[in-house]
Amino acid sequence: MKLKIYADRLSQPSRAVLIFCKLNGIDFEEITVDFVKRQTQSPEFKEINPMAEVPAIMHGDFKLFESHAILRYLACAFPGVADNWYPTDLIKRAKIDSVLDWHHSNLRRGEVTLVQNTALATILGRQPGPHVVPEAEKLLSASLEKIETFWLKENEQFLLGNSQPSIADLSLVCEIMQLEVMEEEDRNRILGPYKKVQQWIEDTKLATRPHFEEFHGVLYQVKAKLQKQQLLGANTET
Amino acid sequence: MKLKIYADRLSQPSRAVLIFCKLNGIDFEEITVDFVKRQTQSPEFKEINPMAEVPAIMHGDFKLFESHAILRYLACAFPGVADNWYPTDLIKRAKIDSVLDWHHSNLRRGEVTLVQNTALATILGRQPGPHVVPEAEKLLSASLEKIETFWLKENEQFLLGNSQPSIADLSLVCEIMQLEVMEEEDRNRILGPYKKVQQWIEDTKLATRPHFEEFHGVLYQVKAKLQKQQLLGANTET
Repeated sequence: MKLKIYADRLSQPSRAVLIFCKLNGIDFEEITVDFVKRQTQSPEFKEINPMAEVPAIMHGDFKLFESHAILRYLACAFPGVADNWYPTDLIKRAKIDSVLDWHHSNLRRGEVTLVQNTALATILGRQPGPHVVPEAEKLLSASLEKIETFWLKENEQFLLGNSQPSIADLSLVCEIMQLEVMEEEDRNRILGPYKKVQQWIEDTKLATRPHFEEFHGVLYQVKAKLQKQQLLGANTET
Repeated sequence: MKLKIYADRLSQPSRAVLIFCKLNGIDFEEITVDFVKRQTQSPEFKEINPMAEVPAIMHGDFKLFESHAILRYLACAFPGVADNWYPTDLIKRAKIDSVLDWHHSNLRRGEVTLVQNTALATILGRQPGPHVVPEAEKLLSASLEKIETFWLKENEQFLLGNSQPSIADLSLVCEIMQLEVMEEEDRNRILGPYKKVQQWIEDTKLATRPHFEEFHGVLYQVKAKLQKQQLLGANTET
């Protein structure tokens, strides 16, 4: 029973699941569900995930959604997955769960709200109220500060002082990568103060190559397209 | 090594952890950290949880925060915990993880934003913008709708069609209980349409008695206090 992954590579949790499978030699079929084209809202996809969000998986008859639940499941269901991704040791596992749970209302909420209401606002038809963007940037920066000063330890490359990446590193770095679609100046202002975070992103890319860059290709294309539009807009204004 | 739980019974994730331990015969010391009095911000407490939030635990030297990570850990670390709370079966466990992960950006976000910006706004010094409350109520209602139509199944009492409660039932019901501090009229308007949700709350209370009510005592006291203030306010206006 081949694993089916319903994903959109523009969605950061989708990328985390796809990269995880590639890295761990898990054979899968990728089924693209384009959320900008509202394919996540189709009756067929809602049969897979009634919450109408990507990613979702089907493994035999078993349907599952929520990327962290999927990553936990895959790490346990496929015997070839190395222990560092989601350790069997209870304490090590609990610490990774703690990062993953913290992520939802902190880094993820800040990043998603910021990017969807700035760089992607036109594509998504958003018209944010005056407080939305500054509040999102504040939450994002506070989250990056916590990663820099607490989750990343001295002398180790990955979260929680680990020498090898876990599903938490993959999930959080894919989230931060979404900032690529923002204007360079804004992205540098946001990430600039966090040197350890910047090094950790590079270390995660290296540890997961070549699949990390492969699955981020679509994001880089969107970035290039937005930069071109911005340039055209600037020229028109001139 | 006795488990230490740093908690505030006014915090719904704190109550979920406390009730879970009582139900499963886990011996613990409860250390109250009052978030209204900003005790969560003290340097001593930040040594336990640098995120300055309750609940947190110490088990021997091991410190852990994030209530879902704590519940998962306790269910696995204490051999006396019945399997229904967090099943060892991979598929059953993954489904519970899916509910727990979904919770953060849906039911929890809607409920917390609504209650903290209405009933508890004065205590917490909040002055919400004009869209905050209606958007929070919309998200909360959409989340209750999903619980009613998807997570709760016909003919079974608990989430996911289970005949016994899991840590997801406990976490989500404790969250909804926070609506107790709202005005009766608002609470009825919000919960009224969801008959299965109402029955599930009652079933969860029954399955977890007497500890459920015991740990909700403080919440009922706050509710009574707010009702009295409201009544005094109404009389003054007359």
